[in-house]
Amino acid sequence: MAEEAGQPLDAAIVIGVDPLTLLASQAIVPIDHDELEIAGALQGRPLPVVKCLTSDIRVPADAEIVVEGRFLPNVRELEGPFGEFPQTYGSRSKREVMEVVAVTHRKDAIFHTMVGGGLEHLILGAVPKEATLLTHLRRNFPNVLDVHLSPGGTMRFHLFVKIRKTQEGQGKNIIMGAFAGSFDLKHVVVVDDDIDIHNPAEVELAIATRFQADRDLLIVSGSQGSKLDPSNSDGVGAKMGLDATKPLAAPEMHFKRIRVPGEEAIDVDDVIKRSGGDWRAALKS
Amino acid sequence: MAEEAGQPLDAAIVIGVDPLTLLASQAIVPIDHDELEIAGALQGRPLPVVKCLTSDIRVPADAEIVVEGRFLPNVRELEGPFGEFPQTYGSRSKREVMEVVAVTHRKDAIFHTMVGGGLEHLILGAVPKEATLLTHLRRNFPNVLDVHLSPGGTMRFHLFVKIRKTQEGQGKNIIMGAFAGSFDLKHVVVVDDDIDIHNPAEVELAIATRFQADRDLLIVSGSQGSKLDPSNSDGVGAKMGLDATKPLAAPEMHFKRIRVPGEEAIDVDDVIKRSGGDWRAALKS
Amino acid sequence: MAEEAGQPLDAAIVIGVDPLTLLASQAIVPIDHDELEIAGALQGRPLPVVKCLTSDIRVPADAEIVVEGRFLPNVRELEGPFGEFPQTYGSRSKREVMEVVAVTHRKDAIFHTMVGGGLEHLILGAVPKEATLLTHLRRNFPNVLDVHLSPGGTMRFHLFVKIRKTQEGQGKNIIMGAFAGSFDLKHVVVVDDDIDIHNPAEVELAIATRFQADRDLLIVSGSQGSKLDPSNSDGVGAKMGLDATKPLAAPEMHFKRIRVPGEEAIDVDDVIKRSGGDWRAALKS
Amino acid sequence: MAEEAGQPLDAAIVIGVDPLTLLASQAIVPIDHDELEIAGALQGRPLPVVKCLTSDIRVPADAEIVVEGRFLPNVRELEGPFGEFPQTYGSRSKREVMEVVAVTHRKDAIFHTMVGGGLEHLILGAVPKEATLLTHLRRNFPNVLDVHLSPGGTMRFHLFVKIRKTQEGQGKNIIMGAFAGSFDLKHVVVVDDDIDIHNPAEVELAIATRFQADRDLLIVSGSQGSKLDPSNSDGVGAKMGLDATKPLAAPEMHFKRIRVPGEEAIDVDDVIKRSGGDWRAALKS
Amino acid sequence: MAEEAGQPLDAAIVIGVDPLTLLASQAIVPIDHDELEIAGALQGRPLPVVKCLTSDIRVPADAEIVVEGRFLPNVRELEGPFGEFPQTYGSRSKREVMEVVAVTHRKDAIFHTMVGGGLEHLILGAVPKEATLLTHLRRNFPNVLDVHLSPGGTMRFHLFVKIRKTQEGQGKNIIMGAFAGSFDLKHVVVVDDDIDIHNPAEVELAIATRFQADRDLLIVSGSQGSKLDPSNSDGVGAKMGLDATKPLAAPEMHFKRIRVPGEEAIDVDDVIKRSGGDWRAALKS
Amino acid sequence: MAEEAGQPLDAAIVIGVDPLTLLASQAIVPIDHDELEIAGALQGRPLPVVKCLTSDIRVPADAEIVVEGRFLPNVRELEGPFGEFPQTYGSRSKREVMEVVAVTHRKDAIFHTMVGGGLEHLILGAVPKEATLLTHLRRNFPNVLDVHLSPGGTMRFHLFVKIRKTQEGQGKNIIMGAFAGSFDLKHVVVVDDDIDIHNPAEVELAIATRFQADRDLLIVSGSQGSKLDPSNSDGVGAKMGLDATKPLAAPEMHFKRIRVPGEEAIDVDDVIKRSGGDWRAALKS
Repeated sequence: MAEEAGQPLDAAIVIGVDPLTLLASQAIVPIDHDELEIAGALQGRPLPVVKCLTSDIRVPADAEIVVEGRFLPNVRELEGPFGEFPQTYGSRSKREVMEVVAVTHRKDAIFHTMVGGGLEHLILGAVPKEATLLTHLRRNFPNVLDVHLSPGGTMRFHLFVKIRKTQEGQGKNIIMGAFAGSFDLKHVVVVDDDIDIHNPAEVELAIATRFQADRDLLIVSGSQGSKLDPSNSDGVGAKMGLDATKPLAAPEMHFKRIRVPGEEAIDVDDVIKRSGGDWRAALKS
Repeated sequence: MAEEAGQPLDAAIVIGVDPLTLLASQAIVPIDHDELEIAGALQGRPLPVVKCLTSDIRVPADAEIVVEGRFLPNVRELEGPFGEFPQTYGSRSKREVMEVVAVTHRKDAIFHTMVGGGLEHLILGAVPKEATLLTHLRRNFPNVLDVHLSPGGTMRFHLFVKIRKTQEGQGKNIIMGAFAGSFDLKHVVVVDDDIDIHNPAEVELAIATRFQADRDLLIVSGSQGSKLDPSNSDGVGAKMGLDATKPLAAPEMHFKRIRVPGEEAIDVDDVIKRSGGDWRAALKS
Repeated sequence: MAEEAGQPLDAAIVIGVDPLTLLASQAIVPIDHDELEIAGALQGRPLPVVKCLTSDIRVPADAEIVVEGRFLPNVRELEGPFGEFPQTYGSRSKREVMEVVAVTHRKDAIFHTMVGGGLEHLILGAVPKEATLLTHLRRNFPNVLDVHLSPGGTMRFHLFVKIRKTQEGQGKNIIMGAFAGSFDLKHVVVVDDDIDIHNPAEVELAIATRFQADRDLLIVSGSQGSKLDPSNSDGVGAKMGLDATKPLAAPEMHFKRIRVPGEEAIDVDDVIKRSGGDWRAALKS
Repeated sequence: MAEEAGQPLDAAIVIGVDPLTLLASQAIVPIDHDELEIAGALQGRPLPVVKCLTSDIRVPADAEIVVEGRFLPNVRELEGPFGEFPQTYGSRSKREVMEVVAVTHRKDAIFHTMVGGGLEHLILGAVPKEATLLTHLRRNFPNVLDVHLSPGGTMRFHLFVKIRKTQEGQGKNIIMGAFAGSFDLKHVVVVDDDIDIHNPAEVELAIATRFQADRDLLIVSGSQGSKLDPSNSDGVGAKMGLDATKPLAAPEMHFKRIRVPGEEAIDVDDVIKRSGGDWRAALKS
Repeated sequence: MAEEAGQPLDAAIVIGVDPLTLLASQAIVPIDHDELEIAGALQGRPLPVVKCLTSDIRVPADAEIVVEGRFLPNVRELEGPFGEFPQTYGSRSKREVMEVVAVTHRKDAIFHTMVGGGLEHLILGAVPKEATLLTHLRRNFPNVLDVHLSPGGTMRFHLFVKIRKTQEGQGKNIIMGAFAGSFDLKHVVVVDDDIDIHNPAEVELAIATRFQADRDLLIVSGSQGSKLDPSNSDGVGAKMGLDATKPLAAPEMHFKRIRVPGEEAIDVDDVIKRSGGDWRAALKS
Repeated sequence: MAEEAGQPLDAAIVIGVDPLTLLASQAIVPIDHDELEIAGALQGRPLPVVKCLTSDIRVPADAEIVVEGRFLPNVRELEGPFGEFPQTYGSRSKREVMEVVAVTHRKDAIFHTMVGGGLEHLILGAVPKEATLLTHLRRNFPNVLDVHLSPGGTMRFHLFVKIRKTQEGQGKNIIMGAFAGSFDLKHVVVVDDDIDIHNPAEVELAIATRFQADRDLLIVSGSQGSKLDPSNSDGVGAKMGLDATKPLAAPEMHFKRIRVPGEEAIDVDDVIKRSGGDWRAALKS
């Protein structure tokens, strides 16, 4: 709106805030909501704020550095390439230009940066996305227990879904529900409730032992994906879903996972003490 | 709860009410909601009710016939087969038994019955389902404009979706969204916003001229479907989605539908009058 | 031949003839046959004809308007785009040019035009095509009972085939037979003999309740189709066939369609009379 | 008819006739036609016949052996298993019984037998089938030049089709036409007109160098096939068609077959004579 | 042989040996080779052995426990179910019976057991298998750099292959080579040489960003797999291969992985020291 | 190396040698091996050689013609197109140039040429390839009995494999093994041990009667093939494998091939003699 009126737009860049404020900054809310209120809600008390020197914009009072400035109307410069969440570089493009008019900072201020595609970057975006996807899926599938955007899948492209299966065929329906929930999703794996979806090796185990590629796979070509996926064609590509759940009708022993009877009753510390010393320290060196 | 306590449960069957009350009876609401209030809301004024003769159950005051009775605890008898919405017969099964204790009715009461699988049966269920599916789809796809459960698809199995396409590949994502919205859905067709989805011939035209079966089709085998579909295997079967939208990049004339310039300015009645008589009546005889 | 000899070719365009003559004009016959004789055969008596004023060409005596002229050798002008049967516009192309030398007409002549892609256009072509396809199919499949080129399928692209199934698997063979019968066909549906193929909702019902997309579908990519299908690639594209017949081995009740016992004995007019008035008229207004 | 009247039916088995009469016996004609007349037509003169000793049945006068007898009404005995054309044995089944009443024969008569599944058996059936399939295909595809039921395909299951390709995609349409022409056909290969379809190695060469399995293959599952194919399921199984034609748009040299310029002008006999002797005889020993 | 002669067969079970001897026991060698020699080779010096008390069998001199006995001819008892490598239980079956005649052990002997399907079990088998598969693949594909049987794939079912790609299409050929190398393999992923195949998250990243399911996937149904895979049908099932390599023709930046310029020059310990203390310890607690 | 040093490289072209020496010239051996030694090994005695007139290069003493010369450094001229094994012409390309300095020959020397793509060309390459592929396959599949590169498949693209099947599913694994053995292979057929793989009609019979295209086929798209296959895209294309083996569980009679009991005991010569003359000679003329 400012640009249409030929006016510069006041702005401030805040560098170095506490983690909850950082997380709040990623919440997807309507334009008339204030992410600083969300930050306050997450912390359980109002976030202390101060006004900028050169504008009325409020910024967190504890920020390490604040860069004040204004976006120039109708000015664009080429920026990038920047590292993106797929851990590759996005394309360069012409973007808005901010003219800096003031910089304030704490004494011995820490410059907090984040590497594009690094774990910090990925997690900040994944936390609200997982919550949104879980809520979305449970509306139609109340037997969805949990979801996880795996780090190996850049926390955007791969979703693991844990369900308590109640009807044969459900896995495929839930895969479609997940893909409908975010076009960024490219691969979805649905597993039973005895699988820890936060442990990629457990999900891989379910694929290895409960999945048949000609029966339990859903491939969708020509669908909308992320424009940041370097392997698709300008955002159009294939999706793949794997139903790695056991058949409901399988005999109990058929898919039963091995456990040593009584293993939960063992006090490992006691065993080590009685064996005459802690050899675990030695293993670590 | 009554059955667990070994008690009979008072009940009343109401035959012959106004259409809005009938429609309200199909709303899917939590168990502690009263469908009669929904009927009142639909009619814009409270629904007049009276108490039954043999229990405290309230029934519409204008009902043609009211059958009062009580469900007997732990009694089941074989019923059916009844006609179901796929216009075939469901299987027989053991169901609860109601003992009738009184029947009241208006003078010259009309016995309103509904043929299972008939249009009246189908529409009563389809109205709330279409609303639910549209709301469900628009949460993730705000460019979905309308949905229709077609009569030819038993108003349960076939969904037509009209969208304003904004990104290539979107059709497939929306197809998955629809299937995730109701496991009853078996076939979904997505069309552009120049197609009237309430006219099956228009949807068929989109399939005939904008769809390529090796590119725009999504087939999902081994998914959860309706147990009333006689062609699947106990509720597990295949789904099929067709993306019959035009490519965004197509030249404007390529898919342009024929129209006669000026046709909307013609006054058909005037043309007929000036041609010396109404030959349309003759055509009908 | 005239063009090769550098001669103009006499021609006449006839506008406004009776429907049977119009239909006869669409018959596909060898070049030395005269469509006017077919028109006579359809009407059961010789068609009255007269000679043109400027050439020996015979035209129907009752025609509203006759445009006489001659095709100029080796002259071509760009024409179109015209509306075509897929209800889109074909491409422009250079075509022959006729020089008009005389126009004759009846008094108060009616100019009969036909909108390209309109129902009149479609039916004129569909009538002989349905007959040809039925004959073609029955040569190898005598149990084919009827075929229909549906309006929704532009009466060129979609064929519905009704059969009395005698051997499992037959539907797929008949689908192939249909595709071999006309390269224009793009989608074919085969149904049982209890389905009315002239009612698209009945065909859709068969697809909804007797068809499984991973078992009863035939997709043929890279085949010859119509160059007027805007969705294929210069006449090469995909075809799709659906076998929506019941399995021969299905239990009788499994696919039995609902009917109300005794419904055929009801005299609806009598019921209405006895109910005190015809409410049907009211429904229509 | 005789059996329904409780009467025995006179019959004669003729063993040892000339090849044209044998071939005529395989013609598929209506029940009131006489295959002996076809035999006469094939030979260009009436076939000499004589009456049987014990009935009015006419048999070829030159037959080696004639077994006269009568089919007993309502008597069936288990027969077989016999060798069938797939070169495997069919199932045993109960069939009619003929009581022998007389045997006549020429002096030093030759007993002509045919091994089931042998080449003599296969060719007798294949000759009329090839003619029928060629006629069938040319009705819709006048550019089909020749067909061949290959010996390796038991002269029933494999058809090679030679075409002069005029439009891209045509091969797939012709494959469907062939499958529609005989449900016995299981695999069809379409080749260009520079391939000798009576030489299986040439057809194999076309598959090796002009075919891509993910583009030029048509697979049809769940179709009607031969009940004598031991690999399908009671006559229901898969068909496969290969379009091994060159693309029309390929550069001329791309698929050009090697030839030595001038090779057709060489007189091999002269070359051999001048080289001082015929070494070909030596090669054969 | 002993059993055929009706003789018992002397045997000894050794419990508790050094790891190299344990590994040597898993080598797959002809029956006339002695695994103890392999153990010696691995250790770089002959393995000290002693004779059993009740037979001439040699056992490692340092073993914790030795159970001596003899297999009884023609005696079988039901054993199991035991935990197997897929981390499920195999079926029970009748197996040979050993009669124990003596047990010797070291003072304070340690009873070394291994949990079926545990990591110790898996690694013992995986070490020789990885070596065999790498050798096998490099015979035909010298550009295969490394292979890994991932723990998540039970170290039997999932193989990750690292290659230096030299020709487009190679990934699919190498996938087939891997499946041909061991019928136990069920899923194979091929990646480029910038991926660490011993880090499952890196392999997952390659799948997330370099793979398209409708282009880079190979599915093989009805192939021979492991009879211990609980999801297949008695050892017959599907295999799946993923080619997650970059196209050779991709622009350099398109798939370039993010790195911070100069990151390899940073001395983390120095950074920490200068920052006034090691906060890493705090993070761990 | 010579070229890098700017030196010409002495060379000799030998035309007209005995067949074993010709075959030896095709052996694929390391660069420091001498094919002439292999020729000697094949013949069982050292091959007599002589030095060239203009260099130290040894050539077979019995060669018909020897062309001596030297390759010029850094000189390339366009050559071709030549006939290649697919029996089409390869592309033209710039290749090294040899300057001829001397030609020696036997008296009345025979100029031995070979037509590119002719049988002589194909067999020379196929003999070592078949041996290599058989060895390669038997390493993992000891039940592979024989392989054959069929002439119809240009002796490079089509491999027939004969196995003694021991486990269901094995055919698919062996197909993958073959494709991994040579990227030139495009189509592979696996058959049982009662099929003669050197007779293409027998392999075709196995496909006709033991194969189902939707169950026994493996299609691999986007794999590495031969750059000389004119139907693929610069060496990247599809492969197809057919498992034409019988199911192990089939009843014995189901796939049993027809034979006439006692046929192996017939002495055809004796039959002919007793029939009064050898009519076989007559058949040949």
